[in-house]
Amino acid sequence: YNLATKDPFFRKFKPWAFQTREEQYEICLQKHLYINKKCKELNLTEPVDKFFYTEAAAPHENSPIGLHTVMFIPTIEKQGTEEQKKRWLPLAESLKMIGTYAQTEMGHGTFIRGLETTATYDPRTREFILNSPTITSMKYWPGNLGKTTNHCLVMAQLYTQGKNCGIHMFMVQIRDLETHMPLAGIEVGDIGPKFGYGTNDNGFLRLSNVRIPRENMLMRYSKVLEDGTYVKPPNAKIAYGSMVLVRAAIVTDAARALAQACVISIRYSAVRRQTEVSPGGEEAQIIDYQTQQYRLFPLLATSYAMYFAGRFMYDFYLKTTAEIEGGNLDSMPQLHAISAGLKAFSSWMCSAGVETCRLCCGGHGYSHASGLPKIYIDVVPGCTYEGENNVMMLQVARFLMKMYGKLQNGEALPTFMQYMSTDLNKKSCMTEEVALNCLVMAYEHRAARMIRDAAASMEKLVQSGKSPVEAWNGSTVMLTWAAIAHCHAFVTKLFVETVVKSRMDSKVQSALTSLCKLYAVHGIVENLGGFIQDQFFDSKQVKILQKKLMQLLAEIRPNAVAFVDAFDYPDEVLQSCLGRYDGQVYQALYDYAKSSPMNEKEVLDSYYKYIKPAQNGKYQQYSKL
Amino acid sequence: YNLATKDPFFRKFKPWAFQTREEQYEICLQKHLYINKKCKELNLTEPVDKFFYTEAAAPHENSPIGLHTVMFIPTIEKQGTEEQKKRWLPLAESLKMIGTYAQTEMGHGTFIRGLETTATYDPRTREFILNSPTITSMKYWPGNLGKTTNHCLVMAQLYTQGKNCGIHMFMVQIRDLETHMPLAGIEVGDIGPKFGYGTNDNGFLRLSNVRIPRENMLMRYSKVLEDGTYVKPPNAKIAYGSMVLVRAAIVTDAARALAQACVISIRYSAVRRQTEVSPGGEEAQIIDYQTQQYRLFPLLATSYAMYFAGRFMYDFYLKTTAEIEGGNLDSMPQLHAISAGLKAFSSWMCSAGVETCRLCCGGHGYSHASGLPKIYIDVVPGCTYEGENNVMMLQVARFLMKMYGKLQNGEALPTFMQYMSTDLNKKSCMTEEVALNCLVMAYEHRAARMIRDAAASMEKLVQSGKSPVEAWNGSTVMLTWAAIAHCHAFVTKLFVETVVKSRMDSKVQSALTSLCKLYAVHGIVENLGGFIQDQFFDSKQVKILQKKLMQLLAEIRPNAVAFVDAFDYPDEVLQSCLGRYDGQVYQALYDYAKSSPMNEKEVLDSYYKYIKPAQNGKYQQYSKL
Repeated sequence: YNLATKDPFFRKFKPWAFQTREEQYEICLQKHLYINKKCKELNLTEPVDKFFYTEAAAPHENSPIGLHTVMFIPTIEKQGTEEQKKRWLPLAESLKMIGTYAQTEMGHGTFIRGLETTATYDPRTREFILNSPTITSMKYWPGNLGKTTNHCLVMAQLYTQGKNCGIHMFMVQIRDLETHMPLAGIEVGDIGPKFGYGTNDNGFLRLSNVRIPRENMLMRYSKVLEDGTYVKPPNAKIAYGSMVLVRAAIVTDAARALAQACVISIRYSAVRRQTEVSPGGEEAQIIDYQTQQYRLFPLLATSYAMYFAGRFMYDFYLKTTAEIEGGNLDSMPQLHAISAGLKAFSSWMCSAGVETCRLCCGGHGYSHASGLPKIYIDVVPGCTYEGENNVMMLQVARFLMKMYGKLQNGEALPTFMQYMSTDLNKKSCMTEEVALNCLVMAYEHRAARMIRDAAASMEKLVQSGKSPVEAWNGSTVMLTWAAIAHCHAFVTKLFVETVVKSRMDSKVQSALTSLCKLYAVHGIVENLGGFIQDQFFDSKQVKILQKKLMQLLAEIRPNAVAFVDAFDYPDEVLQSCLGRYDGQVYQALYDYAKSSPMNEKEVLDSYYKYIKPAQNGKYQQYSKL
Repeated sequence: YNLATKDPFFRKFKPWAFQTREEQYEICLQKHLYINKKCKELNLTEPVDKFFYTEAAAPHENSPIGLHTVMFIPTIEKQGTEEQKKRWLPLAESLKMIGTYAQTEMGHGTFIRGLETTATYDPRTREFILNSPTITSMKYWPGNLGKTTNHCLVMAQLYTQGKNCGIHMFMVQIRDLETHMPLAGIEVGDIGPKFGYGTNDNGFLRLSNVRIPRENMLMRYSKVLEDGTYVKPPNAKIAYGSMVLVRAAIVTDAARALAQACVISIRYSAVRRQTEVSPGGEEAQIIDYQTQQYRLFPLLATSYAMYFAGRFMYDFYLKTTAEIEGGNLDSMPQLHAISAGLKAFSSWMCSAGVETCRLCCGGHGYSHASGLPKIYIDVVPGCTYEGENNVMMLQVARFLMKMYGKLQNGEALPTFMQYMSTDLNKKSCMTEEVALNCLVMAYEHRAARMIRDAAASMEKLVQSGKSPVEAWNGSTVMLTWAAIAHCHAFVTKLFVETVVKSRMDSKVQSALTSLCKLYAVHGIVENLGGFIQDQFFDSKQVKILQKKLMQLLAEIRPNAVAFVDAFDYPDEVLQSCLGRYDGQVYQALYDYAKSSPMNEKEVLDSYYKYIKPAQNGKYQQYSKL
């Protein structure tokens, strides 16, 4: 952090919200090229070091060369042959090649098999001919594609010997290496302004008879021989590894975004005062209001829960991919289910949470001075990219239905699915103590019941004469409920296990246990129907939980600021007038206002051009802007 | 609409998302001055005509002279004396005076009594001296204050004869009428960029010993005589009328925003295809997926529900203010409770709903081409301004507790509170038919139970030795639940009554009845805990409702597009590539992309400045932007 925050280079730019989009792009590009150079100079090679250096150097800025590092190079490494790696990686390292990953099309997102771009092999010239045959087949959204990159990895339907061989990846040069002009047959550009991501030139790309050599297909797994013979990969799913890694990263990104929003809103809530509690008395810190605690503290707990989930996800990814590389594919379905589920669950919970944090800051939360709108527009696309969340949850549901089938057949279940075999007639063990194991059991009970209910719904539809596909489609809402309940149970259990099993100072453990309980109890109270529709809890237990929830809020209050300080985000990263460590919120807001670009002139030109004439009854009608 | 959309003046501007903030402000100012002139020329004097003309002329643009029309002039009309009206209104009409309403301070929002700005009467010169004594007392957020207005109505604590007489309104000139420069003692400016509202120069204002004549205090109700004697208003609450009107308007604004988002997302869902339903088959329209219907159709129903609520609110406002003007203040507490409650309930539901609509459009929903992000950033501040929603709900709760007290004392209750006297031991009448009256009864039962539970919580705390204030503060979460449940019941009942009692074609009535049922059933299923924790519904009834919900989705599907077409928003108002009436979504997206300002040059300057040198190992380090 300090290497970046103390470097004068990064301090000379005005805040992003004061820049036009074109400036945002240009400044961010400049910063990231500098970061790229500096990481080499400083010998920062570990991803974690690079990550923290970059976060402090260009916080909340989406790099114009980000996809090059995160997707382009790793995909060559993973899916390229040895010759391809030798040929491309040095060029990519030196930025002669700047690339991205072009998968999404205008008409096709999460359903990859529906992609329309074609790559047709021509054995006479030993080339592939790439085409965007329809308007919907145009590549649309790939990051950094519009103006920055000169190469991209294009996902396309491979045709050879008159047959469609499914989607494969092709290296396509799109711009001239000297002039940066688009090559023949290439139409490429920026897709225009978006909710956020101003620094990212998400692009469109139309290909018209673009010829590339046979050697430009990534051929580590599947191949097209010179004569056009297609050679299948040993395992069709092996190529999806990098998508899983990105999904794992989204869990952590979501956790970090919510954590930052919690830092800002909780610190500000300790500074802000509103409404005298007793007539004539001092106005209270808003963090002391139960309603404010009820909105913020469960989110604080969620940010911790998601951190732990992100860490688990990454470890599980490393462990499983090592197994896969070793030829053992047993854990692959679980890896997919967990990564899809946690990606969707975390991005939903954290996006909504960030926006609640923003609203908890009242009017000032709406100003970019708070830093909160930016965190929201950065985190919320995680609900959509790398697999739309609803589709992800249905993939989880499909896995759960398979597991349910195994359970019915008496087959063994993976560890984290064993809760499904619980006796659904058993009632909750919850007492006044509100023990952690009773909380976990409640979540597992709910998930198991919802899985059974979804399966029952499908069975019923099949019995009534529907096809299996129709039965599935007629049960997707219930399947989604089951998948969400499963993820919720998974995250809760992980939080509990982390708190119970990690070695830490006993006071920290006690505080963290309260936070963990809050996470679990709040989740039950807010989703009560699912826990009581089968009378798992009785009325008395419901009252115990509601009362405990209010007690936990009060219990956490003295530690709330410490809990967010513990994330250790420096002011330079938060970029928030409200979330400052020193609490000097109002002076910072005033300084922010004074530096607004709109205040550069005391009287704007528009006053002379429009207001004054209007006051004199003259309306300027067709002046050009 | 046509008067505006066919006027070439409005067609010459580029889309707002392609403009810098300074351009957005300038173009919007130009448009609204033109609208102001045109409305006079076209003799559009009715508010409803002006509203629709303006909506079509400058859709989704927040006027730099909006507060002048909506707050400044009406406040003079309502709270000024006859002399003040004669003096100021002609100047305001001709825009010689351009004003705004300056209430919110940097450190003080919803809690008006906490405002710190002072107006101290000096009987020697017969002037008020206005001051911002602290940094937190600075006016901050008032719309159009930063650069546009030359006057404002300042809310300040009145001091005379050594006494604080509470908050009052003062007319303060802030800029010179000829040069537009700030006057002596005035520091004024724009507060800087925000989540949205780029065209609005929300401002800050610091006052240092600014002297204004005694006649500049709005004196229709309270007065300060020449010698400094303070004369109280006949009724302290009478001045809040304009705030109630604005809250009523927020309900309709929220409904319109959600309606527009539904138009866009439902039309797009009928165009967009994703995932083959059976292997090799055509990809399905996403509107045919149950999960998509489950997210969108209840929002469609909500937009209708909120429309009806907005219409009710406005009628009730007119009726009640007429009574108040006639000296009958009986309905005032109800007017306040209903306006506060519906304002909060509608802005919460509709804001979240708009964002869900956006997410239902997948990746394209994130582009400004969809029009959806703009609708969100325009609607969501309604949760905060004119009374922060949580505070509003606690005001509703305070009213509910008073009503509960009346009930306990056997006193008469206003019509819309009579449900509170229901027997809470009675179970639901719900059958397979899912009758409307059973649905209404369920909502009323839940609200009545939650009101009783909140009251019981307070009683318990008092019995345990807490003060009434502490008991209130210790129950605010439960009080908020009760207030939300009350609003939910109110809106549901109003929807049912509208559908049952309005005269309409029987097919329309049948379709609208399904939509109304969906609203009610979905609300129960999504908030199930509150309806079953006292066993109001039994397990069988819960299953009936869940099943009915899925049936209703299928039932509404054929009418979904007609339901949004019925809102009759022209493309010019929607400004959305996805929500086009003709369904030509993809061509529109392509055109949008091509016109992106980032594509004006094929190769950006930043390529030569930063990328090329970096490729050659040279990093430009300190170039200035």
